[in-house]
Amino acid sequence: MATPPDTAAAAIDTAAAPSAARPAPGPPSPELVAELRALARATRAAQRVVARATADQRDQLLRAVAAALDAEAGELAAANRRDLAAGEAAGLAPALLDRLRLDERRLAALARDVLVVAALPDPLAGELEPRQLPNGLALARRRVPLGVVGAVYEARPNVTIDIAVAALKTANAVVLRGGREARHTNLALVDLLGRCLAGAGLPAAAVAYVDRPEREAVLALLALDDVLDVVVPRGGESLMELCREHSRVPLLLGGVGVVHIFVDASAELDRALAVLENAKAERPAVCNAVDTVLVHAAIAPTFLPRLAARLGERGVSFRADPRALPWLAQAGPETRVEAAGAGDFDREWLALTLGVAVVDDLDAALGHIARHGSGHSEAILTEDPVHAERFLAEVDAAAVYVNASTRFTDGGQFGMGVEVAVSTQRLHARGPVGPAELTSVKWVARGDYTVRSG
Amino acid sequence: MATPPDTAAAAIDTAAAPSAARPAPGPPSPELVAELRALARATRAAQRVVARATADQRDQLLRAVAAALDAEAGELAAANRRDLAAGEAAGLAPALLDRLRLDERRLAALARDVLVVAALPDPLAGELEPRQLPNGLALARRRVPLGVVGAVYEARPNVTIDIAVAALKTANAVVLRGGREARHTNLALVDLLGRCLAGAGLPAAAVAYVDRPEREAVLALLALDDVLDVVVPRGGESLMELCREHSRVPLLLGGVGVVHIFVDASAELDRALAVLENAKAERPAVCNAVDTVLVHAAIAPTFLPRLAARLGERGVSFRADPRALPWLAQAGPETRVEAAGAGDFDREWLALTLGVAVVDDLDAALGHIARHGSGHSEAILTEDPVHAERFLAEVDAAAVYVNASTRFTDGGQFGMGVEVAVSTQRLHARGPVGPAELTSVKWVARGDYTVRSG
Repeated sequence: MATPPDTAAAAIDTAAAPSAARPAPGPPSPELVAELRALARATRAAQRVVARATADQRDQLLRAVAAALDAEAGELAAANRRDLAAGEAAGLAPALLDRLRLDERRLAALARDVLVVAALPDPLAGELEPRQLPNGLALARRRVPLGVVGAVYEARPNVTIDIAVAALKTANAVVLRGGREARHTNLALVDLLGRCLAGAGLPAAAVAYVDRPEREAVLALLALDDVLDVVVPRGGESLMELCREHSRVPLLLGGVGVVHIFVDASAELDRALAVLENAKAERPAVCNAVDTVLVHAAIAPTFLPRLAARLGERGVSFRADPRALPWLAQAGPETRVEAAGAGDFDREWLALTLGVAVVDDLDAALGHIARHGSGHSEAILTEDPVHAERFLAEVDAAAVYVNASTRFTDGGQFGMGVEVAVSTQRLHARGPVGPAELTSVKWVARGDYTVRSG
Repeated sequence: MATPPDTAAAAIDTAAAPSAARPAPGPPSPELVAELRALARATRAAQRVVARATADQRDQLLRAVAAALDAEAGELAAANRRDLAAGEAAGLAPALLDRLRLDERRLAALARDVLVVAALPDPLAGELEPRQLPNGLALARRRVPLGVVGAVYEARPNVTIDIAVAALKTANAVVLRGGREARHTNLALVDLLGRCLAGAGLPAAAVAYVDRPEREAVLALLALDDVLDVVVPRGGESLMELCREHSRVPLLLGGVGVVHIFVDASAELDRALAVLENAKAERPAVCNAVDTVLVHAAIAPTFLPRLAARLGERGVSFRADPRALPWLAQAGPETRVEAAGAGDFDREWLALTLGVAVVDDLDAALGHIARHGSGHSEAILTEDPVHAERFLAEVDAAAVYVNASTRFTDGGQFGMGVEVAVSTQRLHARGPVGPAELTSVKWVARGDYTVRSG
């Protein structure tokens, strides 16, 4: 998500979500499963029509969506205010209300993101790795749509546009199930998408919405492996676990980001401070914000007091290992620093809290990251090219950075326009999931009445 | 699998498997889960060591495996004869005993396949799609190993080598669980792999074997989403369903192949007959064998009697739709043809039986394939380039052919050396799964203390 006021998309959802404390739902009724299967089958039929459209037609559709988001911003914002009012009346937390908000400024940013997607090259074009085999076949691969993408998300209504637009760019259709808090906004956005599809001569059913507040509806979707090609859950850990436990449909799962930045002995310390400030303090509640800073022992005495002062001014408090603690405390009594407790180095803080540990060398930093990292985003700040390359090669994570903030792990920042999720799984897609990641492949082979011998 | 006497690998497993009739197992005991988790953790630790080896070291390991398969062929064949004797005593069907057999000739072919894999370029080399982003980052992707691959398979012991070798090529480790029928052969092969790993200075634990005959062991593996990155089930439909229903680990699933060849009006009929004979009669029990022939109405009167005669000689019997029936019957009284019954056009025959239907045009053929195909392998025989391109574009299957036998859908034939499975799912890998498909990606980004604005 590149929308400026609303970045870090999937990220924020991993903070405590409204559903986190709910008990697991019971099995869905056969009627509910049948209802959603019928909906998904209609979506599947619509997908086949979308797949026959040209890339130009699909991009034109996306430009129409962007134009409609601008033209109807007033009505959309009004629908959103209904959700906000209901949320306030229900006592939703301010952070949740902020996620729910889709005002005219955010709508304008969303429309700009959609135009970025429309302008991206067509991931379905051309053939990949063409080759002539000794058996006589001319073999190649083509990218094809995944098909029907199911999405289960929570309070953020812009996700409706993000996922639908990424999917339509690559000729997929979607079955969306957003959070009840955003119901009016989501229905208005889905209505807009349907009208744009119809205006482009495509079936509105290519964007389906499951207007079912009960959590059993999620389980019903997860049973539809005959009609859904993938389900993308975006939400808290309880939603992820529900999906892992019950899904018959393949999943594209995001996960926790326990994110490290290692400040090597050779790093330029002034610039390292700026990177850490960016990675921790700009948007602390997102999954790509740094959680633990590892500092080389050789620079700890000079760097840690400066870190405490610089980030302390931004309201950051510290959880330090025994070696880092005295240097941080040295910054002065106003530094909020305490000894790291058990598990503190395994936590995704999603807040203005930062773990700090001193390590003896690159190997110790790599060891700490291997033990405590969650495979999301990891960075090294160094002037040593050998250390930089070793870090890139040896750290096992979706995104690995040299001399950059971890905050870049985001579909918008990676040039995808919008983001469907940030995958921390290893199958199919890893890291930001954009339109190109919603594709599969098809092998195409041409022969001359070629037969196989043996 | 390119081993000549044993091709079509995963394929054959989809025939009625020994476990097909077994009841679903109960939940695995916590002790069993803990035992397999400990095994898989050791494999995971071993994988990290394998990942630090160079591509040359891994290829040298594979060449050592090939040499050992040759050098120890006598002992391996002897271990296999123990399994065969036990199988005969237990009354296994001849087809199953054939799958179980790993004699010196098949071992020699297996060794050759391993050498093909050793000679393939390293899929982990280099960086993909490097680009400079406006935000200041130099971004690229690298291929990385999936990690630890679990595999559950049945009677065919060569699968032990196929999967281990494909995995080690791309620096993965494996947890294997083969069928009880092949226990002695599998243990001998795993011992060989372990000695080759040790000889290469790598941990033998990178190839682990679950020597547990009870089916609960499969469920225990499927629970290990904290240590296994993927599970590949190879077997009958009951095994696939067990995995879909219970797995917390992402799956790479094969599936049924209901395979079509459409003989267009413009096809060269002599050569079309040769392709059909190859696709049906050479190895009828495999998933890439043709199940239904669709014949353009314009050529049905001339082509169908010849088809009946040519394939009839090979022992093929026919299930025909009402339009095809009279033309097939015309070939003579010795033609075994009957009217197709309900569901006959949805069947994977795995036998010398062939469905035949007459269609009016390309659209009718595409419609039939969309309704009845399973997305495995589909072919058109035509001299019309427009029809050829439409077929390639519009048929939704893992492999789509123009003027070729469908029998090529196979890792060996596609140049992968060995084959882990033939995936009919859309996520991650579709079609033959070779060493390159056992990789994930990692984003690498280089900046100059680059921070994100907004």
